[in-house]
Amino acid sequence: MDMDNKHISLNLNIRGIGQSPTLAINELSKKLNKNGRTIYRMGLGQSPFPVPAPVVESLKIHAHEKDYLPVKGLKELRQAVAHFHRQKDNVDIKSNNVLIGPGSKELMFILLMVYYGDVILPAPCWVSYAPQAKIIGRNIRLIHTSYESNWQITHKQLNEFLQGEDDQFKPRLLILNYPSNPVGGTYSSSELEKIAGTARKYEMIVLSDEIYGQLNYNGNHVSIARFYPEGTIISSGLSKWCGAGGWRLGTFAFPAEFDWLLDAMAAVASETYTSVSAPIQYAAVRAFNGGILIERYLCHVRRILAHLGERCTEILREAGIKVHSPDGSFYLFPDFSPLSVKLKERGITTSNELCERLLQETGVAILPGEAFQLPPEELTARLAFVNFDGAKALSMSETIPLNKKIPEDFSDHYCISVIQAIRKIADWIHMD
Amino acid sequence: MDMDNKHISLNLNIRGIGQSPTLAINELSKKLNKNGRTIYRMGLGQSPFPVPAPVVESLKIHAHEKDYLPVKGLKELRQAVAHFHRQKDNVDIKSNNVLIGPGSKELMFILLMVYYGDVILPAPCWVSYAPQAKIIGRNIRLIHTSYESNWQITHKQLNEFLQGEDDQFKPRLLILNYPSNPVGGTYSSSELEKIAGTARKYEMIVLSDEIYGQLNYNGNHVSIARFYPEGTIISSGLSKWCGAGGWRLGTFAFPAEFDWLLDAMAAVASETYTSVSAPIQYAAVRAFNGGILIERYLCHVRRILAHLGERCTEILREAGIKVHSPDGSFYLFPDFSPLSVKLKERGITTSNELCERLLQETGVAILPGEAFQLPPEELTARLAFVNFDGAKALSMSETIPLNKKIPEDFSDHYCISVIQAIRKIADWIHMD
Repeated sequence: MDMDNKHISLNLNIRGIGQSPTLAINELSKKLNKNGRTIYRMGLGQSPFPVPAPVVESLKIHAHEKDYLPVKGLKELRQAVAHFHRQKDNVDIKSNNVLIGPGSKELMFILLMVYYGDVILPAPCWVSYAPQAKIIGRNIRLIHTSYESNWQITHKQLNEFLQGEDDQFKPRLLILNYPSNPVGGTYSSSELEKIAGTARKYEMIVLSDEIYGQLNYNGNHVSIARFYPEGTIISSGLSKWCGAGGWRLGTFAFPAEFDWLLDAMAAVASETYTSVSAPIQYAAVRAFNGGILIERYLCHVRRILAHLGERCTEILREAGIKVHSPDGSFYLFPDFSPLSVKLKERGITTSNELCERLLQETGVAILPGEAFQLPPEELTARLAFVNFDGAKALSMSETIPLNKKIPEDFSDHYCISVIQAIRKIADWIHMD
Repeated sequence: MDMDNKHISLNLNIRGIGQSPTLAINELSKKLNKNGRTIYRMGLGQSPFPVPAPVVESLKIHAHEKDYLPVKGLKELRQAVAHFHRQKDNVDIKSNNVLIGPGSKELMFILLMVYYGDVILPAPCWVSYAPQAKIIGRNIRLIHTSYESNWQITHKQLNEFLQGEDDQFKPRLLILNYPSNPVGGTYSSSELEKIAGTARKYEMIVLSDEIYGQLNYNGNHVSIARFYPEGTIISSGLSKWCGAGGWRLGTFAFPAEFDWLLDAMAAVASETYTSVSAPIQYAAVRAFNGGILIERYLCHVRRILAHLGERCTEILREAGIKVHSPDGSFYLFPDFSPLSVKLKERGITTSNELCERLLQETGVAILPGEAFQLPPEELTARLAFVNFDGAKALSMSETIPLNKKIPEDFSDHYCISVIQAIRKIADWIHMD
């Protein structure tokens, strides 16, 4: 917004808030692309894979469904989601404790609006948590992590933070996200267990954003709800593991103790989005019910992403960039600090400058660490290795038995624009 | 929420807010129905007609679409919506001034959140305007209307209200809804022109909720934007005229001058619902592009609703209930005040008691005037004459040429449960 907006009447919490950086970079990249530039779109974290065929088929079958569905969600879908969490996460979720929303992002927003408490965010964290809290007017408390701790919070850090607070039993919401956007790492069971102990002691609610849970490459995602079932809300949805980001369907699974929170959220839902699109909900039942076709899809998707993540990590490391291998999701979070002197000579001293110059000079679009609540001068960025034809890669992977390793040169053939972009970063960083 | 909630931490704007009454009564009616009671569901305002076949077909064709679409909406859809308003409403809307959301209700909520001003509501008004303003913390200013003025605000009333204000140029949003939910009436062009004059004089923004515009029975809906293009936001969507309430797609069309408002809303959208479900947006292009099949569908729908609305009005009037014939939508707003003495003898002194007792004693579910911001002791209620098989009625209507009148006994054959319910109300009101 510009000077024309001097005399407008806007909520002050919203003035100056731009579009979410991930979406903004996506739209900017599209624009540059239109002007003839080759753009390597590693900004938006969208699954490159198609929605599994039986799920698309189910949407077609239910295309005529037109009724307003119940606010909390279609009964069969709430059952399927509860079953999914019981089976996949070994936590005792009942269908009555499930809430369906038009994306987990919308559900998080309504949670922050409804729950009156501070928001604790380990940084780096997903781009939208902090802007949401800002729009609503909640206190944001960042806890900074580092490359050395795999960009993860430790229970010790959390304990220290809480012991430093004037009011230790103030209502608080801790948001964890694993496998992580923007990092690609996940927490160990033992660390989750210890964090759960701290959360229990201080009666904190944990919003556990597990949207990438089924994209843990080893297929053995562990939820903190296993250790803190009475205080954890599990957030999930179709966007990542099911490749259906554009469909907009997210899910929250609550402890039975949190009926008051679920009901208050449903009250706001009934005054805002009303219910999630009916045909989409019917199709989502098929997705959450799972079965052999969907498990096989997931195995291929994980194998491709693990392979590609590893290849990207190797190239970046060879270029002297610090980066952890991912455990899941489709992100890498390179730390360019070993090259800071060189970058400074080129006038680059912040993550924003880094990403802007990279986009201008190479066409590679990635997101600056600042978008994830890190200090501007930390030279980090998020890279989504999704700019390849997922349908093609998937059908090729399907020709290779799942018990075999994927060939070393797979990504050079089927994910070539990812590899090219990573090489461009590696070359660019050493330009004179 | 009950006593268990004494020690919870909830946003005080949300404590005590229940589910939207229309949705709550729908869910309650379903429950009673399960217990074996015959329920005449006239509570929820859902179109009884199926989504037009070419639109359902288009959803099937686009079932595989999985990308996150632009925050403001799919380009082709914004074009189709702009074209729709230019053609139907004779107002100069450009596609850049259109915003797509998951229901117009969600868009209204975001508008109230973003725009910092008082909210002026002619009462009775739709159930969700006031709760939305309450959740967000905006001032609600009700202007009461009466049976005699067709439950409509007049420009004189609006002028008087504004002249009585301490600050006449305080930012204000006036919400008009016509054809009206809950009344079924619409404004005359000349009154709209005069209201536009007042709005212009006081620099008010008009949110013109025209979701029932295409269900004006005469097919000649007139928008206030014709008279106040620089200050009117037109709200519409698929829910009513296209029978696709459960699909969740709403539209706002802004004056070019309101880019700052559209952009601020898009910023909030990008942090909440992100974008509307992709397959639904592609299908909506087909709906807004219209054409002969959809026009014919609309002609039949209007003819059935006009016929049925008239039949219901007759029966209620014969029973001594005051009620206006509807001009559009599928609502009647009976006023039971002529029978207030009789009702008082039965212990009924509020609209809530009226509707509760009616539901218990006859199985007819309608909504009390109080839900529409009228004083509890005004004995009014909203009645949605939608509890019939719309697909069947539609295919029967299709056998009768559109230039012929629908037979007198049409509703006795194809909308019989509506007629039965209306007769039950008429009988119940005179019970001893």
